Amino acid sequence: MKFVRDNISRLAGYVPGEQPQAGKFIKLNTNENPYPPSAKVVEAIQVAAEKLVRYPDPVSTAFRLAAGEALNVDPEWIICGNGSDDILTILTRSFVDQGDLIRLPNPSYILYRTLAEIQGANYQEVNFNDDWSLPESFSAADVGLKLVFLPNPNSPTGSVVSQEAILDLAERLPCPILIDEAYVDFADFNCIELVKQNSKIMVSRTLSKSYGLAGLRFGFLVAQPTIIQQLLKVKDSYNCDALSIAGATAAISDQQWLQENVAKIKSTRQLMQEKLTQLGFDIIPSQANFVWCTHPTAQVKSIYEYLKENRILVRYMSYPNWEEGLRISVGTDEQINACLSLIQSKV
Amino acid sequence: MKFVRDNISRLAGYVPGEQPQAGKFIKLNTNENPYPPSAKVVEAIQVAAEKLVRYPDPVSTAFRLAAGEALNVDPEWIICGNGSDDILTILTRSFVDQGDLIRLPNPSYILYRTLAEIQGANYQEVNFNDDWSLPESFSAADVGLKLVFLPNPNSPTGSVVSQEAILDLAERLPCPILIDEAYVDFADFNCIELVKQNSKIMVSRTLSKSYGLAGLRFGFLVAQPTIIQQLLKVKDSYNCDALSIAGATAAISDQQWLQENVAKIKSTRQLMQEKLTQLGFDIIPSQANFVWCTHPTAQVKSIYEYLKENRILVRYMSYPNWEEGLRISVGTDEQINACLSLIQSKV
Repeated sequence: MKFVRDNISRLAGYVPGEQPQAGKFIKLNTNENPYPPSAKVVEAIQVAAEKLVRYPDPVSTAFRLAAGEALNVDPEWIICGNGSDDILTILTRSFVDQGDLIRLPNPSYILYRTLAEIQGANYQEVNFNDDWSLPESFSAADVGLKLVFLPNPNSPTGSVVSQEAILDLAERLPCPILIDEAYVDFADFNCIELVKQNSKIMVSRTLSKSYGLAGLRFGFLVAQPTIIQQLLKVKDSYNCDALSIAGATAAISDQQWLQENVAKIKSTRQLMQEKLTQLGFDIIPSQANFVWCTHPTAQVKSIYEYLKENRILVRYMSYPNWEEGLRISVGTDEQINACLSLIQSKV
Repeated sequence: MKFVRDNISRLAGYVPGEQPQAGKFIKLNTNENPYPPSAKVVEAIQVAAEKLVRYPDPVSTAFRLAAGEALNVDPEWIICGNGSDDILTILTRSFVDQGDLIRLPNPSYILYRTLAEIQGANYQEVNFNDDWSLPESFSAADVGLKLVFLPNPNSPTGSVVSQEAILDLAERLPCPILIDEAYVDFADFNCIELVKQNSKIMVSRTLSKSYGLAGLRFGFLVAQPTIIQQLLKVKDSYNCDALSIAGATAAISDQQWLQENVAKIKSTRQLMQEKLTQLGFDIIPSQANFVWCTHPTAQVKSIYEYLKENRILVRYMSYPNWEEGLRISVGTDEQINACLSLIQSKV
């Protein structure tokens, strides 16, 4: 296709996890929540659906006020996005020139590479240490480095880097670092307070996982106001629609729902980890709503395929210079038991 | 802000029309529809609101099937966006390298300039001829030209360029041309058939205006499949949410609602044009849901301010090397009569 930019023409394109639109599947492949969202979300959307004739609030004020209260952050420190993928795109377009460098850990979220490629930038993948900490080189001030992505908890591992290590990283880096906290509500700590301590630290969140709202597309970023003001210039004018703003505001205002939901997921996660270990898998203790598992002898790809034949979707993943494995989202106890029974027959 | 790209730091940022979030205004400033959308849209959203726990269909299949039927286009020729602004962003990121050139007519949609600036590209504004046709230079094959934007009908003028002129343009241009048909449902013709005749012609649409769904954020592009396949790599994976896909699908499937709505708007537009002419304004016969008017003696900026004091918002616009004027959206007959009564007292 001769008219497109060379970097786009070369691009394979990011392939999201399978989203079957028909048929009944147990979906444990894209880390969605197995439970429906707060009933208050549905109510708020139904009210907003009657008022779609007007453009939405360009800066999602209602959500920023509610999130500010829930997270103890000034609303001026928040920018909202059409999913946290939109936030990642906005950051890339704000900080990274064509030919510049983006750093990310390996293994991590594949989309970071795609974002670099679309921007016409280079990316550098730095392998985690064996204990899932980051090596010294992750903080190196390489030429052209303009943005660092760090998912924390990480996917597909579910592992975390400590607050101390992140603060230390930010002090040494020559550029901003995004702590992608898509899964943080399932973890033992988060990094929002660090944003106040170092202007290079930014934290993104999504409502897709812990709030059960993958279909709503809503995410946000917490960063210092001097950064937020620049990002507002780059986002699409009306990047969040009136329905998602209303639903997201209701969701983040219902912290009790969140706590109860997270407690259930953590309980099932514990069960999963124990049973997978009993089945001979090597697992990394997870701080997210999924478990990464590898097996010393069984063929994980054929397990993935066998599960799919039986209408259970998990994520098979294979990264360069790293082992292949399965990332299994935490479902309901019933879904997980069904999945583990099938796996048991194949190991 | 030292970390952001120079082009972003320099950028003033696009300022959308005022969207007061509180208080009662007659809003005639952002070309929203004065009538509520089809009741089928609200129903579809209420059903979809119960199923937000899953990610949406990444390629909005339901909408593409319905739009394909309504517009007589193969669904493979359609890509959907989070509003047509998202489509404009995707096109810019797909075709335009840093330092390349984007062409647009003057006056037209200010956002095109902003998109060029965010991409780090240059833009070239070509003035319309006095009769609102385009000069020869609009089709020149300048060095680095990678994308041409042509709103048709144009804003703020409401004027159109003929199909013949557009086909001729596309044949001479060295790059793709986007025909931005945000307002086309209020016009006498559209350019979708031209997409089949020349692979450089692409047509974008939005549901914000003629479908009364500005709050929903849904737009789409019609282009040849070789282009669509490239654009799919650049869009965010889940750029349209489950609610907007459901609402947009219901909207485009209800063509009877559209026809009735458009008939009402055209009738009010005719009334507006006659009365504005009686009040001494110069108007351009509009093919859109707004009327552009200038006045030989009255101060249009003070009229804008007077209307705003009286809680009626219209758009005051002033372009470089062009006259200042008011762009007044077509409201209900009652809203327009209220607006014109106030104007009458100031001219």
